[in-house]
Amino acid sequence: MKYNENTRATLLEKIKAAMSEKRFNHVLGVEAAALSLAERYGESKEKASIAALTHDYAKERSDSEFKQVIRDYDYDLDLLNWNNAIWHGLVGAQFVEKELGITDESILQAIRLHTTGASQMSLLDKIIYVADYIEAGRDIPGVEKARAIAKKDLDEAVAYETKHTLAHLIDINAPIYPKTIETYNRWVAKKN
Amino acid sequence: MKYNENTRATLLEKIKAAMSEKRFNHVLGVEAAALSLAERYGESKEKASIAALTHDYAKERSDSEFKQVIRDYDYDLDLLNWNNAIWHGLVGAQFVEKELGITDESILQAIRLHTTGASQMSLLDKIIYVADYIEAGRDIPGVEKARAIAKKDLDEAVAYETKHTLAHLIDINAPIYPKTIETYNRWVAKKN
Repeated sequence: MKYNENTRATLLEKIKAAMSEKRFNHVLGVEAAALSLAERYGESKEKASIAALTHDYAKERSDSEFKQVIRDYDYDLDLLNWNNAIWHGLVGAQFVEKELGITDESILQAIRLHTTGASQMSLLDKIIYVADYIEAGRDIPGVEKARAIAKKDLDEAVAYETKHTLAHLIDINAPIYPKTIETYNRWVAKKN
Repeated sequence: MKYNENTRATLLEKIKAAMSEKRFNHVLGVEAAALSLAERYGESKEKASIAALTHDYAKERSDSEFKQVIRDYDYDLDLLNWNNAIWHGLVGAQFVEKELGITDESILQAIRLHTTGASQMSLLDKIIYVADYIEAGRDIPGVEKARAIAKKDLDEAVAYETKHTLAHLIDINAPIYPKTIETYNRWVAKKN
């Protein structure tokens, strides 16, 4: 699609209709952060905008909708043992593609990886992953440090976010999706 | 083998010859802790003694010896990307079997799992995993609490050790072996 103020406005309408006002404001915050990172690190602003606006598009879908898509589209069936926190990105990209007509694979991948990260991440993947963590509405402990790091070294921002997310999950005894450990081993432990 | 004071003494000789005095003392500490847990939770004391005495038998072998065994015995070749911390239990059981003639599968499994744990653990597996963490020579932060928990609930002791080991690895940016996350998800996050 040709992306301009008109097509962005059409996309915004659909996204706004799919989520709470609070989440929509978060999405706009992620877009602003992603555009700033795209400018800083030389990524397409158009892709950064679309990926940021759509990254949480599916977050308010029901568990049963996600399970249906997992079964119908040949996803790893182990995903059925997880939950919305994992599904809304990894499986949510499918809703973005089908319902919003976004077919750019680099955008869909950034949506898929935005929660767990991955051992291999493109510049756009890193931008969306980090923007989601540092956007202006976030009030996570350490977010100011994450924002400062993101201005200096995007890979280090990926590492900081991954380390602190993981430490938080362990602190609250929450389950950890195995892919998160691949992200940690690559970006924090710097294992090849 | 028939296990008595004589066979234990013969085993001790071989184990002592395979490691530093400091490690040998740790091994004796693990045996004492394992025997106490075996008594408390109703496991064979003979198995607890043998598994405890042999759990670190291979720890001072060279990396090249471990790599040779990994290649020769059909282990997952991803193990080659790891190190002694992971190998000495998971692969070390092979040395125990070949060189010490210990063929009891329940003992060999407890040796294999003593560092990483697993989602499925037998009583003996749990006893060796926990004894290794709480033995009298250990000075880990929180070890007193771990000892108290181990007297009340062995599964909770597995969870405590797993959570704190993982938090420590993340604190120092150390790589995390994926199996450790399976252990965490089962025993800490209590995920099915």
